[in-house]
Amino acid sequence: MTELFPICRSITGNGVCLTFDIMKKEIPLSIHKVPTGTKVFDWEVPKEWNIHDAHIRNSKGEKIIDFADSNLHVLNYSAPIDKSVTLNVLKEHLYTLPEHPDWIPYRTSYYKEDWGFCITHNQFQKLSEDIYDVYIDSSLKEGYLTYAEYYIPGELTDEVLISTRICHPSMCNDNLSGICVATYLAKELRKKKLRYSYRFLFIPGTIGAITWLSANESKVKNIRHGLVTSLLGVGDHFTYKRSRRGNTEIDQVVETILKANGDKHQIHNFSPYGDDERQFCSPGFNLPVGCLMRTPFGEYPEYHSSADNLELVTPEVLENSLSMFREIVNVLESNYTYVNLNPKGEVQLGRRGLYNMIGGENLGKDYQLALLWVLNYSDGNHSLLDISKESGIDFESISKAASRLFEYKLLIKR
Amino acid sequence: MTELFPICRSITGNGVCLTFDIMKKEIPLSIHKVPTGTKVFDWEVPKEWNIHDAHIRNSKGEKIIDFADSNLHVLNYSAPIDKSVTLNVLKEHLYTLPEHPDWIPYRTSYYKEDWGFCITHNQFQKLSEDIYDVYIDSSLKEGYLTYAEYYIPGELTDEVLISTRICHPSMCNDNLSGICVATYLAKELRKKKLRYSYRFLFIPGTIGAITWLSANESKVKNIRHGLVTSLLGVGDHFTYKRSRRGNTEIDQVVETILKANGDKHQIHNFSPYGDDERQFCSPGFNLPVGCLMRTPFGEYPEYHSSADNLELVTPEVLENSLSMFREIVNVLESNYTYVNLNPKGEVQLGRRGLYNMIGGENLGKDYQLALLWVLNYSDGNHSLLDISKESGIDFESISKAASRLFEYKLLIKR
Amino acid sequence: MTELFPICRSITGNGVCLTFDIMKKEIPLSIHKVPTGTKVFDWEVPKEWNIHDAHIRNSKGEKIIDFADSNLHVLNYSAPIDKSVTLNVLKEHLYTLPEHPDWIPYRTSYYKEDWGFCITHNQFQKLSEDIYDVYIDSSLKEGYLTYAEYYIPGELTDEVLISTRICHPSMCNDNLSGICVATYLAKELRKKKLRYSYRFLFIPGTIGAITWLSANESKVKNIRHGLVTSLLGVGDHFTYKRSRRGNTEIDQVVETILKANGDKHQIHNFSPYGDDERQFCSPGFNLPVGCLMRTPFGEYPEYHSSADNLELVTPEVLENSLSMFREIVNVLESNYTYVNLNPKGEVQLGRRGLYNMIGGENLGKDYQLALLWVLNYSDGNHSLLDISKESGIDFESISKAASRLFEYKLLIKR
Repeated sequence: MTELFPICRSITGNGVCLTFDIMKKEIPLSIHKVPTGTKVFDWEVPKEWNIHDAHIRNSKGEKIIDFADSNLHVLNYSAPIDKSVTLNVLKEHLYTLPEHPDWIPYRTSYYKEDWGFCITHNQFQKLSEDIYDVYIDSSLKEGYLTYAEYYIPGELTDEVLISTRICHPSMCNDNLSGICVATYLAKELRKKKLRYSYRFLFIPGTIGAITWLSANESKVKNIRHGLVTSLLGVGDHFTYKRSRRGNTEIDQVVETILKANGDKHQIHNFSPYGDDERQFCSPGFNLPVGCLMRTPFGEYPEYHSSADNLELVTPEVLENSLSMFREIVNVLESNYTYVNLNPKGEVQLGRRGLYNMIGGENLGKDYQLALLWVLNYSDGNHSLLDISKESGIDFESISKAASRLFEYKLLIKR
Repeated sequence: MTELFPICRSITGNGVCLTFDIMKKEIPLSIHKVPTGTKVFDWEVPKEWNIHDAHIRNSKGEKIIDFADSNLHVLNYSAPIDKSVTLNVLKEHLYTLPEHPDWIPYRTSYYKEDWGFCITHNQFQKLSEDIYDVYIDSSLKEGYLTYAEYYIPGELTDEVLISTRICHPSMCNDNLSGICVATYLAKELRKKKLRYSYRFLFIPGTIGAITWLSANESKVKNIRHGLVTSLLGVGDHFTYKRSRRGNTEIDQVVETILKANGDKHQIHNFSPYGDDERQFCSPGFNLPVGCLMRTPFGEYPEYHSSADNLELVTPEVLENSLSMFREIVNVLESNYTYVNLNPKGEVQLGRRGLYNMIGGENLGKDYQLALLWVLNYSDGNHSLLDISKESGIDFESISKAASRLFEYKLLIKR
Repeated sequence: MTELFPICRSITGNGVCLTFDIMKKEIPLSIHKVPTGTKVFDWEVPKEWNIHDAHIRNSKGEKIIDFADSNLHVLNYSAPIDKSVTLNVLKEHLYTLPEHPDWIPYRTSYYKEDWGFCITHNQFQKLSEDIYDVYIDSSLKEGYLTYAEYYIPGELTDEVLISTRICHPSMCNDNLSGICVATYLAKELRKKKLRYSYRFLFIPGTIGAITWLSANESKVKNIRHGLVTSLLGVGDHFTYKRSRRGNTEIDQVVETILKANGDKHQIHNFSPYGDDERQFCSPGFNLPVGCLMRTPFGEYPEYHSSADNLELVTPEVLENSLSMFREIVNVLESNYTYVNLNPKGEVQLGRRGLYNMIGGENLGKDYQLALLWVLNYSDGNHSLLDISKESGIDFESISKAASRLFEYKLLIKR
């Protein structure tokens, strides 16, 4: 995160490519470049934006605002400009946060060609009548939209999609936190034997998801579960927004874990406003994709400002977010649906030493109950998660019981 | 209402015809006459009842009860009689309201030939031992059951049924209020361009609905939504009784409006007791017909008495009932189910100026959200009402957003 | 119960046969004997166990524990033994209840060959260092598992299963109470004209149910409703555990009665732990079989001890349990699904004198309403119990109304 922080990212341009170069030190990425003008459903890929320098000078020639101090100072996607303007004209192109006079806001103008500066309210209030030189050395040209993918093949072609956006400049929670957690999750998963295949997408917001879906329509049918994720570095609790379908396996898995952990959490129904789940859950796709975050956008004061920085986000919170993903993957991977091979009457566990064993392993009565629940409900219609919910026994115990019964050839996988 | 009030109506007879003559000044009506003895499902059309005069005289020849004072004085459907009786015999044929000693009750004996008088309890208590002449100049003869229909053709043959009963003599809430509100609603609707066709029925209670259904079985399949209505002139809130199916579109529409208005209201499940929804929701028809009223029958003191008069019902309350029907018609008419023509990914609203426009019209963020909700949920399975309920955004905003998107050719009607 | 109490029962052996001999004085029983070693699904029928005598003597030759005092003194299914042991060895084979120092616990070792004694904690604490003679004159030999059935044929081959376990030695609530209530219920039912056939099973726990299911697979399809029952002699309320399917007719019947009675009661979802519903509801059968008891096992202090005796269980409580079964049978027998022969519009009840009759019988308005509810909802999809629940009118009134309408040929049975 420290290495990625200074880079000026946007929905296109070199900042994104630089970001991927750094991420490649952790995980292999396949980089995709889609040319400006490519039709992607109802949209088209915009011009590529790059920026080298920008400042505002007063009539004394003093740089009073400098892009070198913070890349947030420039309205993201600003067209190039180099001219002298009065204070009144300048003010029409300035953005501040009056409630937080020391912070620089983050503003963008992707789809309407414009120029502007984002400055602290303190800086704004010191501006006096004067002629100002405004200078933005940016370019908006035919080029590419760049995104990265990392696909980890598992036993099945059914895949789990993890998608996070990479278009924000120097801010940590939104969304270096998502980039880092997804990267480290991918790094861990590639070492494991996996049932599902995993596809990690690192894409610019909105246009990136639309571009990916447009370019990969034939792969969409493999997406069995998915999570859009961001905002993983701030907040004392998780927020889960259900997929549009509302009760898919990923919804159940995340909600079950959140409830089982007993920690504070929030669960929201799908709404067509928010992150890229808007695209994955558009009615033409309606994928089983939810959105996992901590404090939602707009609900923490530092949101979209220079205060969303390396001091705001702590390693502990990032690690906590990563371990939530570990749990989710663990449940998805082990949430089999079994079939009891002796469905008539109970299985005689004692004869197989499965009761003795219980004593020996000191797993107690819950484990015995878990064996009975798994056997009774493994009728091909109940997944282990279903059994866990029905029985009130934690998924871990149910899963352990099922593994033991599977080992004893009392169950087969459906 | 003032003009209709004095007429002595019943389930058959001249009172009903006179009533229709007056209503015809407001709306065209087609009058149907069904002969006595006609088999209508399990029933048959009864003899036609007409009455010219009635009184009770004491032995001094004084008229102590006179039909000319109030047509409620005669047990509705009384057979003719002209004889002298003792007080004891008379008492067996008298009906009073001891709790309201100044009011005349309304009582009927349609299907059991009988005679009787309804008098105030004060009148009753003044009766002394005497020989009384009871005289009812009525007739019960082969004739007709008369009902009226007004059909307003719309774009679709699918129709909305509004049914109200016209069999009550001089009482205002029950049910001149229903007659008046339905008449004025019809008068308004005939001037409009309508999606649905509208069928207004003005029928005697129970036997009228059974007769109409029996005579119009082939039309029943066109009834897409319906409301039986009465008791629209008294009470500070609406009462809605769901159709037997319980969750049809008309049920959802009425309930959504009642909830959105935020006013006090009551919603009841269907029960096979009440008004003519009993017939429309009999198991052989099971139509999507609910019942809309204000204070239900039996729950206001003046119910079925001479106190249900022109002083009880106010124009304001009638107007409020009429405007409820306007709202219902409005939602029914505009509750389309659309299909988003760009279901994959979001539509680029900015490119079409749909975001600029928002600023210009000052419709704010709710309108933006409404656009997104309509686009995302217009998958052919969600009506605008469904989207309103799912999103928590009022129907009006959702409907306005859908119209705009339709105008921009982003939606088609399913 | 008094006669059955002294017998030493187990899952096999003479105690069971003796028990059936006594029960035969009340109801005819067909006795089935299944040989040791018979494969029954995943299990096999165990050796037959019989016991004649048992004791522990101290080195002075004094009998300090004697089977003649209580058959609970021997670990049920103990292998024969006759040897001298030290106190330390003896202690490994002794079972006590430290919290209830005067009570003898009930313990078994059916499927692991072992020997042992169950003694009061007071007896245990008096044991000093000594050499003890332990003597159990039991036998574990090829023989039979014995169970009894009583089948009462009704009009239908569809049957109601009532199953109770008969394997417990001298304890009253668990489960002489079940045996007695089931026996007296059967005795009553055999005198009645019944719609359903009734099958009473008197079987040893677990292995008995598995054996019966294995031997009678072809009969299982006839089981339309069923109850496993036990623990009917202790506790101020009933506990009902739903069938695995959770909302079958028997579940609805029992729950409706419990709620209508207004008494305290508990309703639990199915779990694969408890009584023989575990076998009837194993996934290969998944029968509509619930479990009816009073205070559940383990939740009353005397459970599985010598304190579960003739003083604990009172005739009043047993009679109350029996009358609960009478109610259940009554509702099952009369819970028909009817079809209204005049489904279009209402039936004209007045013409048939069904309203006059009402006055005459003084059944009041609820009865009138019940007639309307039954007619409206008798569409072939609603049983009388459904109508009772939908209307909020008690089953008795609904059932009486339906009988009357059936008598008048207004309904037919579906």
